[in-house]
Amino acid sequence: MKTITLAHGNGGQENNELISKVFYKAFKNDILDKSEDAAVIEDGNLAFSTDSFTVSPLFFNGADIGKLAICGTCNDLAMMGAKPKYLTCSVIIEEGFDKRTLDKIVKSMKEELEVNGAIIVSGDTKVVPRGSVDKIFINTTGIGEIQYKGISSNNITSEDTILVSRDIGAHGATIFASREGIDMNTNLKSDCASLYPQVKALIDADLKITALRDATRGGVSAVLNEWAKQSNICIEVEEASIPISDEVTGICELLGFEAMALANEGTFVLAIKNEDAQKALEILKQTNETASIIGSVSAEHLGKVVLNSAWGTKRFLELPTGELLPRIC
Amino acid sequence: MKTITLAHGNGGQENNELISKVFYKAFKNDILDKSEDAAVIEDGNLAFSTDSFTVSPLFFNGADIGKLAICGTCNDLAMMGAKPKYLTCSVIIEEGFDKRTLDKIVKSMKEELEVNGAIIVSGDTKVVPRGSVDKIFINTTGIGEIQYKGISSNNITSEDTILVSRDIGAHGATIFASREGIDMNTNLKSDCASLYPQVKALIDADLKITALRDATRGGVSAVLNEWAKQSNICIEVEEASIPISDEVTGICELLGFEAMALANEGTFVLAIKNEDAQKALEILKQTNETASIIGSVSAEHLGKVVLNSAWGTKRFLELPTGELLPRIC
Repeated sequence: MKTITLAHGNGGQENNELISKVFYKAFKNDILDKSEDAAVIEDGNLAFSTDSFTVSPLFFNGADIGKLAICGTCNDLAMMGAKPKYLTCSVIIEEGFDKRTLDKIVKSMKEELEVNGAIIVSGDTKVVPRGSVDKIFINTTGIGEIQYKGISSNNITSEDTILVSRDIGAHGATIFASREGIDMNTNLKSDCASLYPQVKALIDADLKITALRDATRGGVSAVLNEWAKQSNICIEVEEASIPISDEVTGICELLGFEAMALANEGTFVLAIKNEDAQKALEILKQTNETASIIGSVSAEHLGKVVLNSAWGTKRFLELPTGELLPRIC
Repeated sequence: MKTITLAHGNGGQENNELISKVFYKAFKNDILDKSEDAAVIEDGNLAFSTDSFTVSPLFFNGADIGKLAICGTCNDLAMMGAKPKYLTCSVIIEEGFDKRTLDKIVKSMKEELEVNGAIIVSGDTKVVPRGSVDKIFINTTGIGEIQYKGISSNNITSEDTILVSRDIGAHGATIFASREGIDMNTNLKSDCASLYPQVKALIDADLKITALRDATRGGVSAVLNEWAKQSNICIEVEEASIPISDEVTGICELLGFEAMALANEGTFVLAIKNEDAQKALEILKQTNETASIIGSVSAEHLGKVVLNSAWGTKRFLELPTGELLPRIC
């Protein structure tokens, strides 16, 4: 690695390499080593997570950069069993940006904060000359109150079942279609949504949750591969059980993508004790009926994800690599 | 305000207008209303603050964007009497950025974290196409443990004395000189430094601290004006007592700036009970002998800052306005 390439921001293999070889290496500590969606601090009582948002276009079918900036950070907290509580908001705005557009973005943020019951308590505003930033970038960083302790991507075993909360790839497909000027004339829209309400429902039902992760950059494929490595297990996925909408399938065929590697912004993967899998599925279906049990854990190929086709063939699902779509989130 | 201009990021009047009319208006809550350097949360036990860094050039005399990114956020925590504890680090990197330069920046961050006794516990890395960002922007957001409660810019009274911790304007003058290609052939360098050690010394000495604020964008002038408004007091400053180095004076004369409005990144203003002012001064002088008592509080012009010249004339020191230097931090 001599220069940083777009692939280093793909949420996949090169991204992990950049993070481990530059940032984790310098900042090494026990909390970072866990590689969770959010840091667990203050005796396990608080979760803490950051995300910067650079999505282009700023407005797209289903959401905008404002809603995305709140969902993204709140979801990382929710994925650690935490209720989002306090957020900071730091914006970098290009000189000449339209004030009404900024108001629209801020309004989206406000609405999504309410869904989470969270508030913005600190902020920073920078304005930079034309050409120093493309329109607006937003960082949100959040603190959540952990309501269910012990969630970790490092503890998944053969006693767990793997589910996804809804059909996958909608955010990635929407941004692709929007940038390519493809008018699908369909219902294709980003899945961008706050996940805390669903996590709360799972916690309230007293289910035994092992791990949660929202499948953002790198998609479901990245989550499953990271889990397989972190827990040193083999995750076996039934290809036929992966929920993919016709619209996303259409975009994938048109542009040659794999839905499993497409980004999501309101879709999570769940590892839950086998005996609670059916109950979890019922709860997830109350929000989206496409929720599905997609796999199980075996000891066949440790650290790997195996995709079982309907025809009985098997293949490894690899961690996404190469230049996936930049500025997807 | 129809479009966002560079002036809206100046740390002065227009910046305050943007923050109050767009962000505070939408996100309104009791914590934001206090307008402190960091939010006080969790029953007054934790401070929480965010900052994004866009400084240009990335490396300058005395520091670089990495050191600045750690000092900036840790200092905001220290200004609330807090020990910096956990930080997040979110970077947005332009495609093609040199990996060794990134390593140098990260190394600076690591060194400065150690000065504060803080660790990075969560991060985010985005890589965006050429032209979407100028080189690299870094957001840091921090949580600090409050060790001295009750610090607030809203409680300053005539029982307080106003000090600055060292000679002012060095950061702003350094960045100006560097961008203009002025080789001062002198010792001019940014004051960029972590302030927690000095705050800790003040706390350990059991002094009665009323308010602390690091004089970043908008300089000492912005801090004093905000304090005068927030506490509804008149701050009277003795012009002759303001410490300004010859190098900064030189840059100011050359380029027509006022040192009081120049940005600092390791200089703070202190409001302390009159009886403790001398002790505070002695402690500050241990770090930098230019520390100085610069003013007092009166009831003459509430909400205003009055500058008393050595010749007995008085003038108001206004909140900085207009396009100050963008990308100063």
